[in-house]
Amino acid sequence: MAAKNLEDIVSLCKRKGFIFPSAEIYGGLQGVYDYGPLGVELKNNLKKAWWKSNVYERDDIYGLDSAILTQKKIFYYSGHESTFTDLMVDCRNCKKRWRLDHLVNGKCEDCKSNDLTKPRAFNMMFKTTVGPVEDKDSYAYLRPETAQGIFTNFKNIMDSMSPKLPFGIAQIGKAFRNEITPRNFIFRVREFEQMEIEFFVKPGEDEKWHEYWVAQRLSWWKEQGLSCNYLKLLKQSKDELAHYAKTTEDILYRFPHGFEELEGISNRTDYDLGSHTQEQGELKITAKVAVNKDSTVKLSIQDPPGQHFVPYVIEPSAGIDRGVLAILTDAYEKEKLNNDKERIVLRLKPHLSPVKVAIIPLKRNESAIVEKAQAIKKSIQTLGLGRIAYEDTGNIGKSYRRHDEIGTPVCVTVDFDTIGHTDNLEQLDTVTVRDRDSMRQERINICRLEEYIKDYFK
Amino acid sequence: MAAKNLEDIVSLCKRKGFIFPSAEIYGGLQGVYDYGPLGVELKNNLKKAWWKSNVYERDDIYGLDSAILTQKKIFYYSGHESTFTDLMVDCRNCKKRWRLDHLVNGKCEDCKSNDLTKPRAFNMMFKTTVGPVEDKDSYAYLRPETAQGIFTNFKNIMDSMSPKLPFGIAQIGKAFRNEITPRNFIFRVREFEQMEIEFFVKPGEDEKWHEYWVAQRLSWWKEQGLSCNYLKLLKQSKDELAHYAKTTEDILYRFPHGFEELEGISNRTDYDLGSHTQEQGELKITAKVAVNKDSTVKLSIQDPPGQHFVPYVIEPSAGIDRGVLAILTDAYEKEKLNNDKERIVLRLKPHLSPVKVAIIPLKRNESAIVEKAQAIKKSIQTLGLGRIAYEDTGNIGKSYRRHDEIGTPVCVTVDFDTIGHTDNLEQLDTVTVRDRDSMRQERINICRLEEYIKDYFK
Repeated sequence: MAAKNLEDIVSLCKRKGFIFPSAEIYGGLQGVYDYGPLGVELKNNLKKAWWKSNVYERDDIYGLDSAILTQKKIFYYSGHESTFTDLMVDCRNCKKRWRLDHLVNGKCEDCKSNDLTKPRAFNMMFKTTVGPVEDKDSYAYLRPETAQGIFTNFKNIMDSMSPKLPFGIAQIGKAFRNEITPRNFIFRVREFEQMEIEFFVKPGEDEKWHEYWVAQRLSWWKEQGLSCNYLKLLKQSKDELAHYAKTTEDILYRFPHGFEELEGISNRTDYDLGSHTQEQGELKITAKVAVNKDSTVKLSIQDPPGQHFVPYVIEPSAGIDRGVLAILTDAYEKEKLNNDKERIVLRLKPHLSPVKVAIIPLKRNESAIVEKAQAIKKSIQTLGLGRIAYEDTGNIGKSYRRHDEIGTPVCVTVDFDTIGHTDNLEQLDTVTVRDRDSMRQERINICRLEEYIKDYFK
Repeated sequence: MAAKNLEDIVSLCKRKGFIFPSAEIYGGLQGVYDYGPLGVELKNNLKKAWWKSNVYERDDIYGLDSAILTQKKIFYYSGHESTFTDLMVDCRNCKKRWRLDHLVNGKCEDCKSNDLTKPRAFNMMFKTTVGPVEDKDSYAYLRPETAQGIFTNFKNIMDSMSPKLPFGIAQIGKAFRNEITPRNFIFRVREFEQMEIEFFVKPGEDEKWHEYWVAQRLSWWKEQGLSCNYLKLLKQSKDELAHYAKTTEDILYRFPHGFEELEGISNRTDYDLGSHTQEQGELKITAKVAVNKDSTVKLSIQDPPGQHFVPYVIEPSAGIDRGVLAILTDAYEKEKLNNDKERIVLRLKPHLSPVKVAIIPLKRNESAIVEKAQAIKKSIQTLGLGRIAYEDTGNIGKSYRRHDEIGTPVCVTVDFDTIGHTDNLEQLDTVTVRDRDSMRQERINICRLEEYIKDYFK
């Protein structure tokens, strides 16, 4: 495994069009990033893989896409208004603010003073005014997690889809946290995306399902190309646990800045549905919930009919941006070549690669080559694999390097042999197919190319 | 064409799990909606169709996914801080606020009083505080359109992708507008999604490209199933035009509440890049732009080398939620059947249907039938078409009606003939395939089913 450092990855991302700091032309907006032409493909491919595995390939999980703007009562009853806080201190010397647990030496990280204020709680939710009347009641929040939209739609999904326990609701979407000190590129940011499942089970079956989901999610991340020795499970200790959680197990990845959380799998008991339901008194809720006088619906299951109970919920919650960073970290390699040169190669799993195939005409002004290459581009495009690039820089070596660096699994080169302009007549209508990882090249007849590419991406 | 009214569509959306009012259990959040299990599939399928047609099937358009939280300088120079406003009036009698142009009778729509205040400008951008310090400078906006993220990344994309004019940048994402009076279901909402292209061209070629994109986009909407006689083009008159636009042509759709904008195609000249560039004085910008002292980059093209100019931009900008509403409106039909009954059928184009195929075992407790049906579900699932449903309610008539109503193009029924439990032995290993629109049923051998379904969705 090659050495990894964050600077290499940040530089690749900027240079090749994966990820740019947002609003850079005006000095940026701290903790906010834009995904470029290749980044948006990588991110979308990751989301697609998650949705396929968790929604399409299962019968017991339903998709959802709830809103970002969130009514304030939801975060009152979820507990976020009172507890979704980080401890913050001010440096009295340079006036900078810090998240307490980020000051590992107990000193200001900028000016090194240890003249700090007492820590106080800082709520991380973004607030905004909704509607034309600006008064103290007209605010809403940008959600700091997608999960609450799932709980508040529990009854809508029960009514429209009639699912039976156990079942889950899956959601991909943006979330926002006003981090005191965003850091480590796209690892800790103020605007990010999540992939969350809330999986509802009978109380008593919760521990078994929690174990199931930890195993399931760990194996999924490996399928996305993350190496076993860069992944680790960590059970949170009693005093780290959120007040509602019975068990939380984190999947940690070894990012360039160290092992940190990629996904958390929590057993949240009946806390969430219990918090948002009416008639709490009749439902024997085990979690400690605030008295709810506002909810208009009962979030429970009847089994047997007439006997209501609140399901427990297992929550596998993953960060997409963290996923992208982990995948880039794992895939990135500076490889020494035999000829004393080196190449940068991004060994992405083919289903995640932003560009699936690059079609390269050896000469860009040789019309027979160009026509052939464009026809091949069109035919491969119809396979529906994603982005197929037409790369006519006219320098074959540079084209291969460029596609190694952005993780294109396959390059197809159309040359003079292809069009029969050489003595190699047995090579007529064949192209060179080059594999990114092995750099091995083989000649393939154009009429077999579609099949070859289809098989490659299966 | 069947009669369409909004209530029918809203009711279907709620009942079947397409779209729910957000935060409904706490009285809702006006102008904000959640997409349920079927709605998220329909919406994602629409986005996928747009991305395929505009990014994958072209060589001249690059994807992007920029952030929602937007630095304030961007909206200062774009002109949004000063001009992104609607005129608002207060009713002095009942204290309600209205968007002036929504009061068609000049009276309060609620209490019918005409004692209204003078209209004043109301800025529709949502504001929030970013970072731990709350002062007058620490605010940012939720973007009211995705477009600005494209312009501010123009140089990043030039540097990383080296495109040549003409070329475009495409983006799908959320945008937010603090509408004074949201209305008409998901037509006018406070949180919505856009699909926008900014297509950069040489000045002088702008009118030709504007026409090209109007034709292109109109034909794309037809491919999504919108009927010709429900679509109309409307060129904005000089006094309707935004100050930066040379021409804007809207694609109107006949929504239940009347013909309204589905997509706008604007010739924005060099206003946007001209607004955000440094060295404006040297660039012969034709649009009237504010003097920019903050931008750190030059947003221009050199052609020939050494000679800088600012490209013109053509912007096809579509609303996804409006697209979903138009598609539902067009597809919805209450159809009279021969037997004096009626059915609701959603005649969605197959590529947009939330459920692609429903596999229905005739009996849910007959193990041979169930096994066969589940095996078929698995095999069809591997085709990668999207959601395949396993529908075991055990009532075949109800299952067909249910899937008509949600637009499932194909139902596959496994019955006693399939498993050879009847005298019809020539029907062994065949299933009934039913077409949603014609309700025609045919028997197909299971070994031919995959091919049949693949062809159907081609």
